[in-house]
Amino acid sequence: MEEIHSEQPLGKEEMSMYLDKAGTLIEALPYIQHFQGATIVVKYGGSAMVDENLKRNVIQDVALLKLVGFRPIIVHGGGKDITKMLGKIGKTSEFKAGFRVTDDETMDVVEMVLNRINKSLVSLMEKVGVKACGVSGKDGSLLQVSRKMPDGEDIGYVGDIERVNTELLDTLLDNDFVPVVCPIGYDAVYHSYNINADDAACAIAKAMKAKKLVFLSDIKGVYADPDDPSTLISEMTVEQTLSFMAGGHAGGGMLPKLQNCVDAIEAGVARVHILDGRIPHSQLLEFFTTKGIGTAIIGDEAEG
Amino acid sequence: MEEIHSEQPLGKEEMSMYLDKAGTLIEALPYIQHFQGATIVVKYGGSAMVDENLKRNVIQDVALLKLVGFRPIIVHGGGKDITKMLGKIGKTSEFKAGFRVTDDETMDVVEMVLNRINKSLVSLMEKVGVKACGVSGKDGSLLQVSRKMPDGEDIGYVGDIERVNTELLDTLLDNDFVPVVCPIGYDAVYHSYNINADDAACAIAKAMKAKKLVFLSDIKGVYADPDDPSTLISEMTVEQTLSFMAGGHAGGGMLPKLQNCVDAIEAGVARVHILDGRIPHSQLLEFFTTKGIGTAIIGDEAEG
Amino acid sequence: MEEIHSEQPLGKEEMSMYLDKAGTLIEALPYIQHFQGATIVVKYGGSAMVDENLKRNVIQDVALLKLVGFRPIIVHGGGKDITKMLGKIGKTSEFKAGFRVTDDETMDVVEMVLNRINKSLVSLMEKVGVKACGVSGKDGSLLQVSRKMPDGEDIGYVGDIERVNTELLDTLLDNDFVPVVCPIGYDAVYHSYNINADDAACAIAKAMKAKKLVFLSDIKGVYADPDDPSTLISEMTVEQTLSFMAGGHAGGGMLPKLQNCVDAIEAGVARVHILDGRIPHSQLLEFFTTKGIGTAIIGDEAEG
Amino acid sequence: MEEIHSEQPLGKEEMSMYLDKAGTLIEALPYIQHFQGATIVVKYGGSAMVDENLKRNVIQDVALLKLVGFRPIIVHGGGKDITKMLGKIGKTSEFKAGFRVTDDETMDVVEMVLNRINKSLVSLMEKVGVKACGVSGKDGSLLQVSRKMPDGEDIGYVGDIERVNTELLDTLLDNDFVPVVCPIGYDAVYHSYNINADDAACAIAKAMKAKKLVFLSDIKGVYADPDDPSTLISEMTVEQTLSFMAGGHAGGGMLPKLQNCVDAIEAGVARVHILDGRIPHSQLLEFFTTKGIGTAIIGDEAEG
Amino acid sequence: MEEIHSEQPLGKEEMSMYLDKAGTLIEALPYIQHFQGATIVVKYGGSAMVDENLKRNVIQDVALLKLVGFRPIIVHGGGKDITKMLGKIGKTSEFKAGFRVTDDETMDVVEMVLNRINKSLVSLMEKVGVKACGVSGKDGSLLQVSRKMPDGEDIGYVGDIERVNTELLDTLLDNDFVPVVCPIGYDAVYHSYNINADDAACAIAKAMKAKKLVFLSDIKGVYADPDDPSTLISEMTVEQTLSFMAGGHAGGGMLPKLQNCVDAIEAGVARVHILDGRIPHSQLLEFFTTKGIGTAIIGDEAEG
Amino acid sequence: MEEIHSEQPLGKEEMSMYLDKAGTLIEALPYIQHFQGATIVVKYGGSAMVDENLKRNVIQDVALLKLVGFRPIIVHGGGKDITKMLGKIGKTSEFKAGFRVTDDETMDVVEMVLNRINKSLVSLMEKVGVKACGVSGKDGSLLQVSRKMPDGEDIGYVGDIERVNTELLDTLLDNDFVPVVCPIGYDAVYHSYNINADDAACAIAKAMKAKKLVFLSDIKGVYADPDDPSTLISEMTVEQTLSFMAGGHAGGGMLPKLQNCVDAIEAGVARVHILDGRIPHSQLLEFFTTKGIGTAIIGDEAEG
Repeated sequence: MEEIHSEQPLGKEEMSMYLDKAGTLIEALPYIQHFQGATIVVKYGGSAMVDENLKRNVIQDVALLKLVGFRPIIVHGGGKDITKMLGKIGKTSEFKAGFRVTDDETMDVVEMVLNRINKSLVSLMEKVGVKACGVSGKDGSLLQVSRKMPDGEDIGYVGDIERVNTELLDTLLDNDFVPVVCPIGYDAVYHSYNINADDAACAIAKAMKAKKLVFLSDIKGVYADPDDPSTLISEMTVEQTLSFMAGGHAGGGMLPKLQNCVDAIEAGVARVHILDGRIPHSQLLEFFTTKGIGTAIIGDEAEG
Repeated sequence: MEEIHSEQPLGKEEMSMYLDKAGTLIEALPYIQHFQGATIVVKYGGSAMVDENLKRNVIQDVALLKLVGFRPIIVHGGGKDITKMLGKIGKTSEFKAGFRVTDDETMDVVEMVLNRINKSLVSLMEKVGVKACGVSGKDGSLLQVSRKMPDGEDIGYVGDIERVNTELLDTLLDNDFVPVVCPIGYDAVYHSYNINADDAACAIAKAMKAKKLVFLSDIKGVYADPDDPSTLISEMTVEQTLSFMAGGHAGGGMLPKLQNCVDAIEAGVARVHILDGRIPHSQLLEFFTTKGIGTAIIGDEAEG
Repeated sequence: MEEIHSEQPLGKEEMSMYLDKAGTLIEALPYIQHFQGATIVVKYGGSAMVDENLKRNVIQDVALLKLVGFRPIIVHGGGKDITKMLGKIGKTSEFKAGFRVTDDETMDVVEMVLNRINKSLVSLMEKVGVKACGVSGKDGSLLQVSRKMPDGEDIGYVGDIERVNTELLDTLLDNDFVPVVCPIGYDAVYHSYNINADDAACAIAKAMKAKKLVFLSDIKGVYADPDDPSTLISEMTVEQTLSFMAGGHAGGGMLPKLQNCVDAIEAGVARVHILDGRIPHSQLLEFFTTKGIGTAIIGDEAEG
Repeated sequence: MEEIHSEQPLGKEEMSMYLDKAGTLIEALPYIQHFQGATIVVKYGGSAMVDENLKRNVIQDVALLKLVGFRPIIVHGGGKDITKMLGKIGKTSEFKAGFRVTDDETMDVVEMVLNRINKSLVSLMEKVGVKACGVSGKDGSLLQVSRKMPDGEDIGYVGDIERVNTELLDTLLDNDFVPVVCPIGYDAVYHSYNINADDAACAIAKAMKAKKLVFLSDIKGVYADPDDPSTLISEMTVEQTLSFMAGGHAGGGMLPKLQNCVDAIEAGVARVHILDGRIPHSQLLEFFTTKGIGTAIIGDEAEG
Repeated sequence: MEEIHSEQPLGKEEMSMYLDKAGTLIEALPYIQHFQGATIVVKYGGSAMVDENLKRNVIQDVALLKLVGFRPIIVHGGGKDITKMLGKIGKTSEFKAGFRVTDDETMDVVEMVLNRINKSLVSLMEKVGVKACGVSGKDGSLLQVSRKMPDGEDIGYVGDIERVNTELLDTLLDNDFVPVVCPIGYDAVYHSYNINADDAACAIAKAMKAKKLVFLSDIKGVYADPDDPSTLISEMTVEQTLSFMAGGHAGGGMLPKLQNCVDAIEAGVARVHILDGRIPHSQLLEFFTTKGIGTAIIGDEAEG
Repeated sequence: MEEIHSEQPLGKEEMSMYLDKAGTLIEALPYIQHFQGATIVVKYGGSAMVDENLKRNVIQDVALLKLVGFRPIIVHGGGKDITKMLGKIGKTSEFKAGFRVTDDETMDVVEMVLNRINKSLVSLMEKVGVKACGVSGKDGSLLQVSRKMPDGEDIGYVGDIERVNTELLDTLLDNDFVPVVCPIGYDAVYHSYNINADDAACAIAKAMKAKKLVFLSDIKGVYADPDDPSTLISEMTVEQTLSFMAGGHAGGGMLPKLQNCVDAIEAGVARVHILDGRIPHSQLLEFFTTKGIGTAIIGDEAEG
């Protein structure tokens, strides 16, 4: 019987490792159960979009979410690549009120770069065996915008979302495709517009009646004292979030993100997570283990 | 902000534990993917049916299989409880050729005991939030038998399965119920019969075109040398199994089990597992980790 | 042409018999029409469960109800067999306030006996070619109970129904199976409980929005004067039933049954029938002929 | 309690009558079961179309067939009314080889009369609460014909069926309507044609893969000796029928009818019945009682 | 290469003709889009039912409506043919208050004639390859009526529509058949009744929640001054229509037609068209070109 | 009544124009009928992709095809824009054997440019009210390729299609979206590849079992004598096409296109059209009028 591969019986240490593995899987059971069929929107940005290892991690996480019964939607940004490409064609960007002033040539570059990123994420997902389809806000008239006028100033093709047409997303999800969305919209005459990815994720989560919205970026979470790493807040209600914002605790980039969180909760999303995309598999740890990492904003009757 | 629960940032050790957890979940990804929608039949017997902790483990495992997309069916035995109950009413069992001689009164007790075990397993499954329904081979005319006549001798209501009507199992699985089956059949005039649980599991696996069949019992697996615990065989082809059987390596209880394995593979089941039910969560470890425990009999082109 | 079987032309008497048969079938037409797709719950108990001929009659009747378009559910008891089995293992039952005091060992026997009866009814139904599946209140979490405390006294595992989960019954009915239910429930920690079969039938009829509820037992119906067999009441409204109960006309066993009838009507059941199971095919006669037998309690706008 | 309608207990005689009724219903059980979902084509003609009582009987019978699970299709004739109407407009019919020579004006009258009869049958069916829709062979291009040329002679718009398009019948049956068909067809240029009703029923039975075809007319059945009423043949195989026809036993009108029966059986219809429409409810008696009346031609492996 | 059919390149004139054709098709695009899936009821009467060329035109138009996504229903009359047929059998019609006094014999003729017309329209539709089914108001209990009593006078079987049962129409439309309806109804005892075709079309349009109702007859439309052909009104609101009626501008036949239009609009029909059936393809021109012909009565928020 | 818009009655000339319009619509009827539900693949390239008017025409044509019941798929190229963009970033393309040598940086530009074009076509389609979704061959793993090695030479990321996964296209078409495909594929390790658009269209037409494949480019069609514009061939069989190719009549760009046509026909496409995209609405004229323009390659039993 020498051709048959045989092995040593389980030693004590090996058995303990096995039990740990089993324990992790069993720990996930109630979470998997709770979110069967729930829609989850993942805003995906920051370092996790640049580092190839982290990128693969994020995609694996979303694949697992899909396989155990979630209906995930990815919304991604791509600011860094846009700036790089603009540089390549010798164009510099002007920013006003935090937004890139977007003329026709810039808009062309934005569309080109975001769509290429979009399709590369699709390929990563397909590579791990999960069906995916990349769409922009122009496909199926997904994201209709009006022109954003910060302080009344015209900054070009930068849009505020007016209407979300969920028909294409529903079609894809119902047929087991993970939609990967790049934040480009169209106006009344069907011109293309640049949209902030956080805004797009938030609007889509609301329109899709998502149970979860996740902001995966280079932020570790919300800190009671930003200078003291020991003050990470793991869970906040809307009320607490509002008083936190009113107290001046939230810095520049954090304020609109928290506002988006509050908006989403008030529109019916059960739980919004701010996760550090630089921690490998942060989504799995947050969703499938009892402890969690990052900060969750929850509705008053949030169950999940 | 003292009402907000905050926590220490991740220490090194904690992070390493987190990564282990994430690693375990990700390790499961390709297995989950591979078996989406696959039917799996679990023959459940031995110590794992007596020890309350092990029982809970087995049920949790099957619940997880269900949640991540398998279509599991449980087939259980109950020999020890039958003997105990017969004792209670002052009846002793005679055995012939390894089978309990089954008169009308014995058959009544068999049915009573197996159905009670059946419903208790259903309750455990419902308790972890997975829908379940307990059936016997009489429900939906699931298991039709002829009278078993070992060496031409009549031993009463002991049956050989003649026909499996899968309609009720299909209905339950299609509506997200886990069928829990007790091995009782009926003959041409609809009298009740006792069936060997291994046989029932094997017949159901074949009729349901299951991808996996699992024998969960007090056997650690197949050993090249039963006296040497270091010779556990982790994977055997049908050919190897047959030559192993021919070589006289398989002891009494093992021979018919291996024959069942070979039959199942030849009827199209991709992989049959012999697992030690005394190892907690042995199913999860066997199915969702790269190493596996126990022995798997595989078809020549088995992919999973 | 002698190999061809030929026959006498119809004689007068034979023709008259034929016309009677045709008349009976045609008489059934409007009733069949009226109840197409209607759910009917049959509480099945008493002598009709003991006598083999009557048992076959009841099953044939339900089979016919199923075939002509009803959606029947059977709920059965089994008190006599429980007492007999308890006797066999040398256990005597104590009764308090009419209920069997139920300790763990008794509960085991109750489950064993009821499930065996349950499956035997399933087999009778399958034998006449109608698909059936036996379930307890534990399957699919059908019947959740709290502990019954008559006059504040703890009598063990005897339950009051708190919640009916109809999902399993819907699945079975929608797939053309007749559900056969034994009255066992579970509490918050999933322990088994004994339930009064009349209560179970009534609760299921209400939850399934049944059009008809039938109590098939050893009671001929309701009599204005129980001592005068000529005073059978064939139809009563709820109002009349309540005044009958208030008037002290209803004896011991009858009072809770009438209360169940009134409850069912008030929860939307159109018509509750009290039928004598000792009359062969009493269901067919009550439902498909113009005269009917037994007593029907009807809602004020009852149409059926 | 005087407002409550009460009644005498069942006397002996009454009980016996009740048992007869129940017996008739139970006798129907296996037949109902056997024909669940089976298509049955009823050619309806002769006296039963003229006598108002018989007409109501026939319609009630078909209604019952529908309610207990058959899928009935009625094909009717109307020769007598056509002749009457032609008379009213002062037109006499010429017959050749048994067929009415049909010019344009005659064809108009045929269509008018048959469609009126058609809709009156529909109304009778709707009146007993069964949904019905009257169609001709022109609706949904049901019956395409070529011109019949008996002995090479042109007799006008009399058609031989070339093609049956079952789509409209399937649509109606699948939506619970009883199709009532009048035997009018169309040719390649969509001109209307008169069709023999027996031929239409036979062609439709074949195309619909009906299990039963019934000829309901003024014929009592097939007699071994037509002059001896005691020689009615209740069942014949195809072989027996052919030898009966070859033996010259079948008279003028009977020969093509028997040929139609044989054709239908050979095309897969399980059983063809020749029934006397003058016996009230002859269909019910033939289909739902053990004895039957009339003559049935059966396939060699006919089961029903 | 002389066996290959070749052709001259496009000349200037030919190209211009081609562009005209393309322009016509493109002009239809927004109309086709707007009415995808919309139900349209076409009352079809007048000269267009007599002239064979016009008849073919009307049928082609409806076929095209069907093919490009409408759900058309035809309701037709047949007064002239009825009078002709009554003449043939030597019966003269009496008219009271504009209605034909309808005794039993007259009703028979009405049914015969209308059903024959009905089936001939079906054949024309089938001939151009569109599935059609002819029904009367008796099929599927489509049109239930009460007896019309103009000024309290009994004029026989002339009906006012009481109830429209849309089930049969829904079944036919859902299965891609064009229903062709003749205006015959039934009363409480299922006697046949004659119905005004305009009334039937209006009642069906309301019950089917049609988006369009079309009266195709020998009326060119509504004129501000009936004596001045240059005063055709191409579009009127309900308010304008009512004031037009109040102003005495509408002649005898026009008044009830306008009342029907107003009723339909008020019941939710978006647009009612009065079209001259004598103009070939008047429906296509009205619906698919920017100009339109005839008069449209529109709801205040009519969009189409 | 002055507020009511009225108009002149139809003059003679106007009427003639109206009849022309109606004629064009009616002329389209049999073509629309013939292609109900048929899949059509439109390869869209050349001038018609550059000129804004022609672009709008092409999109309107496809929209109309969609609305009247076709299932169109657009496959587009974009060579000119790629070259322009490469120029912008200061990169020149090398060509070998007619293919652009494609390194990683070039591939990035190809993806960016094609996806931007892709989404702009989607917007044009949405603007005329037809649902569309832009996909690349990476979405849903639509187009898997191997590396093209012309004459054994490695020219980088240029692919030959190995496998077409139609699942995403089926999902989109079944849910009424027009798929707009850009010809980018992926290899075994999911790297992106450039694909010839004609090849992509041909492969998709074959995999989707399209009835029609259209090459819309700057070619007027096939000419027997390319120097003589009067020798346009309007229809060729495969046999004729092969002999035409063999005869050396086809120039450089034409040869592979004709080979693609022949391949498609042999794989089951009924008809391949070579149309001049510079003629406005050339698709409508080719498909919906009796004359047609351009050249059609037809199968021997082509019916369309």
